[in-house]
Amino acid sequence: MKIFETSTAPNPRRVRIFLAEKGIEMDYVQLDIGGGENLLPEMVAKNPSTKVPFLELNDGTCIGETMAICRYFEELHPTPSLMGSSPLEKATIEMWQRNVEFYFFLQIGMCFQHTSGFFKDRMTPVADYGKEAGAMAVAFLSKLEQRLGASTYVAGETFSVADITLLCALDFARVVKIRLSDEHVNLKRWYELVSARPSAKA
Amino acid sequence: MKIFETSTAPNPRRVRIFLAEKGIEMDYVQLDIGGGENLLPEMVAKNPSTKVPFLELNDGTCIGETMAICRYFEELHPTPSLMGSSPLEKATIEMWQRNVEFYFFLQIGMCFQHTSGFFKDRMTPVADYGKEAGAMAVAFLSKLEQRLGASTYVAGETFSVADITLLCALDFARVVKIRLSDEHVNLKRWYELVSARPSAKA
Repeated sequence: MKIFETSTAPNPRRVRIFLAEKGIEMDYVQLDIGGGENLLPEMVAKNPSTKVPFLELNDGTCIGETMAICRYFEELHPTPSLMGSSPLEKATIEMWQRNVEFYFFLQIGMCFQHTSGFFKDRMTPVADYGKEAGAMAVAFLSKLEQRLGASTYVAGETFSVADITLLCALDFARVVKIRLSDEHVNLKRWYELVSARPSAKA
Repeated sequence: MKIFETSTAPNPRRVRIFLAEKGIEMDYVQLDIGGGENLLPEMVAKNPSTKVPFLELNDGTCIGETMAICRYFEELHPTPSLMGSSPLEKATIEMWQRNVEFYFFLQIGMCFQHTSGFFKDRMTPVADYGKEAGAMAVAFLSKLEQRLGASTYVAGETFSVADITLLCALDFARVVKIRLSDEHVNLKRWYELVSARPSAKA
């Protein structure tokens, strides 16, 4: 079993932290996405979406999409739980994970792709949209600041995959010069807490 | 228990079809999102993301995000399964659901929001980006056409939540004049099949 990834990209780090939290060892194969190694025919055959990371099982079956890979390992190794145990816990964590993913992580990614031109050989960057996406990400930090005034972690009193998504997005946000500021008291408290976990180095 | 929704929007339909497939009765409360009813303080207090649909439980707990609501009912009523049973099934369905959601459903939504100006009182539409998003959605149909040449349903041989996401996105895509064309033989075969299910009328 191995994971094809790019160590500097934010989605692969989500999976590495997830596996570190569960104590699962993994072999990683690096792909140079800037140089288009993920677009080579043998890679597209394994992973049609071309996004990193993707998991290849020993029988050749491939699973793409960060959250699908996490789901696979959550089901195989439910302890420690990172996606919840009861139906309500699972739904609450999924809600927060998706809130962070859509309204922060994705906006940071769009801001990066549409303002940096990093992938301009394979997409049409629209700088005005990139700036809007960055502004949406910054606006969402205020909602997270409010949330983290009411709970220790993003989805409640337990560390979860929603925290992993936010940590990876926040660290990646530096590339578009979006950082926490003095007004983000609760977010900074949370950031110190989750960054101190050994998994954050994964 | 009740769901706040807007019957004409695509995400609420995903949840209605999901519940119809499971035979779960539900009370629905309509919100006029065009008129901003979802932005009223009492609604923001229940559902900070302001997106529809959201579920309110009898004790007042609210769960937003379509897939989180679906997860809640999948866990409470696992049969018939719409999100898979084994770890590999669950991961495969989640991968395809997310592929359809990110690279088709979301692109259709962005094309609509950025070219129609429907929400221009609460966002800054960037028409050039809206057109790009529409082009990305059309390009992804070719990948789905290939996939549906190899499997009966989007995620394999069983109807799943990935099919619900695609059906709702395709029907909504008419608002931006994106439709299946003669080259989409497998997609048309699939569309006839899933549209004929009683749940499609939900």
